[in-house]
Amino acid sequence: MPLDLPAAAGAAAFTARHIGTGPDAQSRMLAELGYDSLDALLTAAVPTAIRMHEVVDSAIPEAASERRALAELRGLAARNTVGTSLIGLGYAGTETPAVIRRNVLENPSWYTAYTPYQPEISQGRLEALINFQTMVTDLTGLATANASMLDEGTAVVEGMLLARRASKSASNRFIADAELFPQTLALLAHRAEAVGIELVVAPLGPGTDATELGEAFGIAIQYPGASGRVWNPSALIAGVRASGGLAVVAADLLALALIASPGELGADIAVGTTQRFGVPMGFGGPHAGYLAVRAGLERQLPGRLVGVSVDAAGAPAYRLTLQTREQHIRREKATSNICTAQVLLAVMASMYAVYHGPAGIRAIASAVHRTAVNAAARLRASGVEVVHDAFFDTLLVRVPGRAAEAARVAREAGVLYGSVDDDTVRLAFDETIAGDAALLDRVLAPLGAEALAGRETGSWRPASPIPEELVRASGYLEHPVFNTHHSETAMMRYLKTLADRDYALDRGMIPLGSCTMKLNAASEMEAITWPEFANLHPFAPREDAEGSLELIGQLETWLAEVTGYDTVSLQPNAGSQGELAGLLAIRGYHRSRGETERDVCLIPSSAHGTNAASAVLAGMRVVVVATGENGDVDLDDLRAKIAANAERLAALMITYPSTHGVYEHEVRAVAEAVHEAGGQVYIDGANLNALLGYARFGDFGGDVSHLNLHKTFCIPHGGGGPGVGPVAAKAHLAPFLPGHPMAQTNDHVGYAHDGGPVSAAPFGSPSILPISWAYVRMMGAAGLKDATAAAVLAANYLAARLKNHYPVLYTGEAGLVAHECILDLRPLTASTGITVDDVAKRLVDYGFHAPTMSFPVAGTLMVEPTESEDLAELDRFAEAMIAIREEADAVARGQWPADDNPLVNAPHTAEAVVADDWAHPYTREQAVYPVRSLVRNKYWAPVRRIDQAYGDRNLVCACPPPEAFA
Amino acid sequence: MPLDLPAAAGAAAFTARHIGTGPDAQSRMLAELGYDSLDALLTAAVPTAIRMHEVVDSAIPEAASERRALAELRGLAARNTVGTSLIGLGYAGTETPAVIRRNVLENPSWYTAYTPYQPEISQGRLEALINFQTMVTDLTGLATANASMLDEGTAVVEGMLLARRASKSASNRFIADAELFPQTLALLAHRAEAVGIELVVAPLGPGTDATELGEAFGIAIQYPGASGRVWNPSALIAGVRASGGLAVVAADLLALALIASPGELGADIAVGTTQRFGVPMGFGGPHAGYLAVRAGLERQLPGRLVGVSVDAAGAPAYRLTLQTREQHIRREKATSNICTAQVLLAVMASMYAVYHGPAGIRAIASAVHRTAVNAAARLRASGVEVVHDAFFDTLLVRVPGRAAEAARVAREAGVLYGSVDDDTVRLAFDETIAGDAALLDRVLAPLGAEALAGRETGSWRPASPIPEELVRASGYLEHPVFNTHHSETAMMRYLKTLADRDYALDRGMIPLGSCTMKLNAASEMEAITWPEFANLHPFAPREDAEGSLELIGQLETWLAEVTGYDTVSLQPNAGSQGELAGLLAIRGYHRSRGETERDVCLIPSSAHGTNAASAVLAGMRVVVVATGENGDVDLDDLRAKIAANAERLAALMITYPSTHGVYEHEVRAVAEAVHEAGGQVYIDGANLNALLGYARFGDFGGDVSHLNLHKTFCIPHGGGGPGVGPVAAKAHLAPFLPGHPMAQTNDHVGYAHDGGPVSAAPFGSPSILPISWAYVRMMGAAGLKDATAAAVLAANYLAARLKNHYPVLYTGEAGLVAHECILDLRPLTASTGITVDDVAKRLVDYGFHAPTMSFPVAGTLMVEPTESEDLAELDRFAEAMIAIREEADAVARGQWPADDNPLVNAPHTAEAVVADDWAHPYTREQAVYPVRSLVRNKYWAPVRRIDQAYGDRNLVCACPPPEAFA
Repeated sequence: MPLDLPAAAGAAAFTARHIGTGPDAQSRMLAELGYDSLDALLTAAVPTAIRMHEVVDSAIPEAASERRALAELRGLAARNTVGTSLIGLGYAGTETPAVIRRNVLENPSWYTAYTPYQPEISQGRLEALINFQTMVTDLTGLATANASMLDEGTAVVEGMLLARRASKSASNRFIADAELFPQTLALLAHRAEAVGIELVVAPLGPGTDATELGEAFGIAIQYPGASGRVWNPSALIAGVRASGGLAVVAADLLALALIASPGELGADIAVGTTQRFGVPMGFGGPHAGYLAVRAGLERQLPGRLVGVSVDAAGAPAYRLTLQTREQHIRREKATSNICTAQVLLAVMASMYAVYHGPAGIRAIASAVHRTAVNAAARLRASGVEVVHDAFFDTLLVRVPGRAAEAARVAREAGVLYGSVDDDTVRLAFDETIAGDAALLDRVLAPLGAEALAGRETGSWRPASPIPEELVRASGYLEHPVFNTHHSETAMMRYLKTLADRDYALDRGMIPLGSCTMKLNAASEMEAITWPEFANLHPFAPREDAEGSLELIGQLETWLAEVTGYDTVSLQPNAGSQGELAGLLAIRGYHRSRGETERDVCLIPSSAHGTNAASAVLAGMRVVVVATGENGDVDLDDLRAKIAANAERLAALMITYPSTHGVYEHEVRAVAEAVHEAGGQVYIDGANLNALLGYARFGDFGGDVSHLNLHKTFCIPHGGGGPGVGPVAAKAHLAPFLPGHPMAQTNDHVGYAHDGGPVSAAPFGSPSILPISWAYVRMMGAAGLKDATAAAVLAANYLAARLKNHYPVLYTGEAGLVAHECILDLRPLTASTGITVDDVAKRLVDYGFHAPTMSFPVAGTLMVEPTESEDLAELDRFAEAMIAIREEADAVARGQWPADDNPLVNAPHTAEAVVADDWAHPYTREQAVYPVRSLVRNKYWAPVRRIDQAYGDRNLVCACPPPEAFA
Repeated sequence: MPLDLPAAAGAAAFTARHIGTGPDAQSRMLAELGYDSLDALLTAAVPTAIRMHEVVDSAIPEAASERRALAELRGLAARNTVGTSLIGLGYAGTETPAVIRRNVLENPSWYTAYTPYQPEISQGRLEALINFQTMVTDLTGLATANASMLDEGTAVVEGMLLARRASKSASNRFIADAELFPQTLALLAHRAEAVGIELVVAPLGPGTDATELGEAFGIAIQYPGASGRVWNPSALIAGVRASGGLAVVAADLLALALIASPGELGADIAVGTTQRFGVPMGFGGPHAGYLAVRAGLERQLPGRLVGVSVDAAGAPAYRLTLQTREQHIRREKATSNICTAQVLLAVMASMYAVYHGPAGIRAIASAVHRTAVNAAARLRASGVEVVHDAFFDTLLVRVPGRAAEAARVAREAGVLYGSVDDDTVRLAFDETIAGDAALLDRVLAPLGAEALAGRETGSWRPASPIPEELVRASGYLEHPVFNTHHSETAMMRYLKTLADRDYALDRGMIPLGSCTMKLNAASEMEAITWPEFANLHPFAPREDAEGSLELIGQLETWLAEVTGYDTVSLQPNAGSQGELAGLLAIRGYHRSRGETERDVCLIPSSAHGTNAASAVLAGMRVVVVATGENGDVDLDDLRAKIAANAERLAALMITYPSTHGVYEHEVRAVAEAVHEAGGQVYIDGANLNALLGYARFGDFGGDVSHLNLHKTFCIPHGGGGPGVGPVAAKAHLAPFLPGHPMAQTNDHVGYAHDGGPVSAAPFGSPSILPISWAYVRMMGAAGLKDATAAAVLAANYLAARLKNHYPVLYTGEAGLVAHECILDLRPLTASTGITVDDVAKRLVDYGFHAPTMSFPVAGTLMVEPTESEDLAELDRFAEAMIAIREEADAVARGQWPADDNPLVNAPHTAEAVVADDWAHPYTREQAVYPVRSLVRNKYWAPVRRIDQAYGDRNLVCACPPPEAFA
């Protein structure tokens, strides 16, 4: 037989790698569901009314191979120019230790992990995060820090909001240091206006008298200032506090290694960024911001807080603490909409401190400071004026009339000055410049300083200008964890040890409804560590960022097309910020038309709590709309609520498919009713993974949506962040989408975005956008559609396999779910006492991460398998759930006591089954090997079930002493 | 107090990361030993007679920071030019799946693992290697394959040697296909000459009659040929076999997906490379070669062979099988000196097959073939002659008189042709060109073919020229492992699952005497995956490889300086090949002086078996020299042996410090005695880690040495390879060091190396040389010396802590060891019955990899902690060893029976302690948590102790069926 040579295959190779179920598996799954094709299933599942028409002349190019996509990314990267940045303003060059880059940022055990809501299987990253909190509290001199904030700018906003809540002052005024970073000031102005805070920007300094500033609920001080100036604000702080205000100090964490901490200055709150602790600038993000408070304010903290509790055996165990503060619990009573954190980046920053230790951090800070000191001395010796006497790492240099020319000359030498005005430049030194005498010569030459390479290493040692009163005397990072892992071998092992404690996507399925834990492909992740993307300053000149800007523009175009909108902003660096940006755009739109009274936001009762929290922070009032039995919006109630709020209707905020995992058939009618009443329709894109290629928000009534690139578009969850939450809108809202005062451009592929900023950096978290870019580029429009179909198939397959064991709570008209399904455990709990928690923890024993618990309905599990799981894993999960149901039945039958069975005792640790003493009515094998395949592939939970209440009652949010683990 | 600003720290940062013990720890360790400084310790340990003097004007630059070193490497990389290579000759462009690159090549769990001599803690990579063997046997159609060979060229040599052993023919002739790759022919010629084989290079083809070739013990055929020609050699093979010869077929593994396998053609042996299965060309290596044999020859296989056995519970378990074939056992009776393998690369290649599966491999082969077919059709349509009718991926194209000009034009378009002669070019297509129509146009245009981009995707489909009789009909890769992990998610998890079974340096110390398992720093590893180093063809034009050649020259210079030699060759791609190259240089030197009778190689009885094996393969006779009680060479016996062999003395081969871990004081006298007799002194550099910065081989008598970059110079062991074994020599031996017919240059920093090659590629394994380059660059001469001192301190510290529990077998005059120590377990075994094996396996329960077992002395453990372990880990090891000694004493006291105690039952699996049934006289906790700290950081062995004899008796060297694990 002659050799049969098939025609060239398409470039669909990556699609087949991303989607876990191949044609054979899909056929078997369809047969189980009674459909003969994917098309038939999707036709039945997705309402005809919203099905999209074919896109002609798609903006999305045909799928590229992984190789081709990477080659294109290399081309884009080559169009960036990475100079030595002295721009400063909260972004500094830093050296990411290679051992951390390789073993955290490039290791799926870290980057594919989910938020540590299941603490028993998240002890590794929780330890890393408590290290982070300890690092921040140590350096800031305050009692408690969270882990973490989205960036420094929004952390200052959160500090302001916290001050308002905690202040006893009746004042509505907040005083902002004129030396705050300009992007922080812009954010404060935008956010304060929305919630009715009067923002006063004032020049502050040694002579400022608190009483002259007038009463205020708080003050924010940059320390050191944007100009580099270091001064002692303790008297001013004392004055503000005397009249009931709270002091927020935005502090540079590295400077705090040498100068007095905010806590020592009397501050209530410290905020900032941990970027320069080993996290590349990345053209603006992502990095971890921080927020720390003095004792007494810990229960006011926004964001996530890690605490220490005990497990069922009494051993110390980490967990997220005080979760009742969180937005999804407090909804419209929420005081912050912060939901995700920047876990992966916080882990990196904390590990930078672990690796360097106190002496190392102090040495880095000293080297940076010494470089600035020497530069100042050389400039002055050459007759050039350096404005401030006291500084840490940043100099304001006066070169009257010559600033632009000096900057131009410097740029030709690969050096970027911070531009201030015609007469002044700003030089912010960092770790990457410190110690490089030749580079320092290049930095200073354009300002007229003579070359003195080598001189600084000699006896020529100018003194530090830090005033004695501000020299830091207190210690920091004294816990053993910061004093143990200083060799690379030790560090590598510490990171491995922690990763081994955690369950991430590299072990098995994480079927988290609403979170879309799909594949984060290695090829998607590659470009983020390339220096051209990683080392760009967010305020670099436009010409230096051509490649990144091109990538951003392409991604905006593609996201607009797949959602049916006109324009997209990638600035929001979390879904919550995308919501806020969208609602602020709606607010801006109404106001631009003079309809300032429109402030009511209708939200269905089933909505994610963040929706309501964001509405509140956009200055809106939340009115809840009822949902029907199947989770759909109750159209009658909607009409009633619209009527009741008549002229005040600003927006309706819905999620589609609904948070109940169902395609609502009446969504067009819902949107029309809102539009008729003059409202805008906000569609939360959390569930976009059920729609891509089949329906578009913009086509069926949406005016604005946010997307979650960390759900639908493959940015890894990173153990609880980074998230990216772009906001997409129709053209009429474009002028109100987030702009940025320092942006290289506010033109977004033809639409000007002129609203205030919602993130510190103009483009949010650009360094990770290559991930989503690569995903779309390698899938093409057809691949994205295939992924949707495979996700819907997988969810319906699981629903079908499990419905006889656990009722599926909501289905659409054809008895189908969308991309996730809710399993109702309430009947089981009623009949057996076995709770959602028991099932979730028992799944750990079976080698799974639990589905989403009790959201959107208490007593249920929401399962979203995504398109990336293969049939073997789907079946393994179904079989585990069925086996657990049988275990629960055994409890119901009385075979095992209700208070001593494999479910209530789950998860089981190795230590528990190794103990000689085994008094349970089931065997050790039943405990940890309920199915035999686990013998060859077992994930061992490192702790037993954690006592949540104990941790909340006994709040400990810093590293426990080693003896605790003895 | 004013801020104290210390002077700039030196660039010693990396040294402090590489060396595990800081100044405080070293002080404590020195105190334990009774020395007050490192210098005092080293002065006592290293004999004054060999101490080196300070090097003036060191060739090694001052230590650079990690950042600086990487920047310099980027500069070197930028000087390489990576074109699209059509050069072929056994090196092809390939696409490494990103999931494999990230999770194997960039993951320390894989690359820092040791050779799987402790099979219980190596099940992951052993499974990967048995997958490799199965892949090779399936595709070659033969019964058994090893895992793996160093490269294709040396695999053909091993095939020739195997044929000679196995052939019943009395002939000494071996016939080599003129179509063998030119580098293979050069290797065969060099190696055949040394062992007295008559090599006949003959043009072979369809008409060749075996009888006309004359009797031979074997024949080697390239399939497809170097020219790309595909023909059916089965009649020729049958003819050769009929007269008692064996047929070796060097086959392209990818071609075998489409054409009949060597086994089907009647071959006895198949060899080749697996490079194009996802391993970048890397300017020549490393890649995994393969060697497979028909049934009946398996016990003749050189190299490592993985087999299936059972553990103490009867479960299937993998292990290295038939180890008695290995060189370190057979010594001068060895038939091969192959010691290390290319495990990391074999793992990558096997995973490429696992990921693509049979359909995917076939599709890739078809796409490559189709590209060649279409290219041939287009060339012929344009009137250009394509020489061979039948081909797989390579075309010989005749362009009379225009070959050079066409190649020049192509090169300007970024395309590299294979050069043949003035009238002919060679075009070898590969996976990276297949399907890229525009690239194909660029490839063909300089030859006069018109652009036809897009035409091939239409109805224009030329037929395959493979003759029907050679079309492959048999299946391959049918085992489930090749048909399961095809989504990236599944692949990532499979790699994680396997890695989780293994113990590598990322878990803890691997204190292997003689193997120097030190840190492989992440920054050292970074450059190896950069495309500029990874994607260069080994025979690329010199101008395209400027950066790599510069790097190689620098590394040669640095290695020459630290060893006191004049010149270095980096060509040997394993330590054994370095030995061979050094001995062949000695042989060449004597012959050049007319002293052809010098063929005796003196080797101390304590030498590593590879020494003797290499000597045999260099055509020498081994004469063993006795060693004294402390392991030193017995000077009297040496003098006697020299006298006895008088005029026949070729060389003495010694290891320094000795394999007993001791600095011999008489080494100068030893060398002088040999030199006086006209012999050359070969010093094995295996223990160089005890000397760097303190003594140099060249200074105390060495004429030639090989080094192990995978020991002293940080190339990771990769689970059993790659190794790099450069040979360093005095000037008089330079002309006899390995050259290469295809080398860009045979000039090595002023010394011409004109010997025959020992590796397939001119520079061996250049893609990993950036690792050693970065190590030396970041340590500087001072750092290398510090590392030596720290390594010697650590070994002496452990010796001191353990000597009261286990006698330290050998020490030098001051009672000190060098960088390793031998613990004598024979008294313990005599008194308690507890063996070396028991202690080694019990160490697994304690969370350690065992030290080297029974080498160089049976019944002992040789411990080498290296400089990279910190004091905490050294103490943890010492305490584990002491605790084990106490356990053994308990057996001696009768507390536990000799046949049922924690030692003889070690290692203990989780499954064993989870079982309900526990009949042992010690508790489950004593079994698996002998120290409490293990509770929080436990490595679980996946199998119990493996039955070695069972596996040898029941040889199974391919993937077992899944039911075996049920």
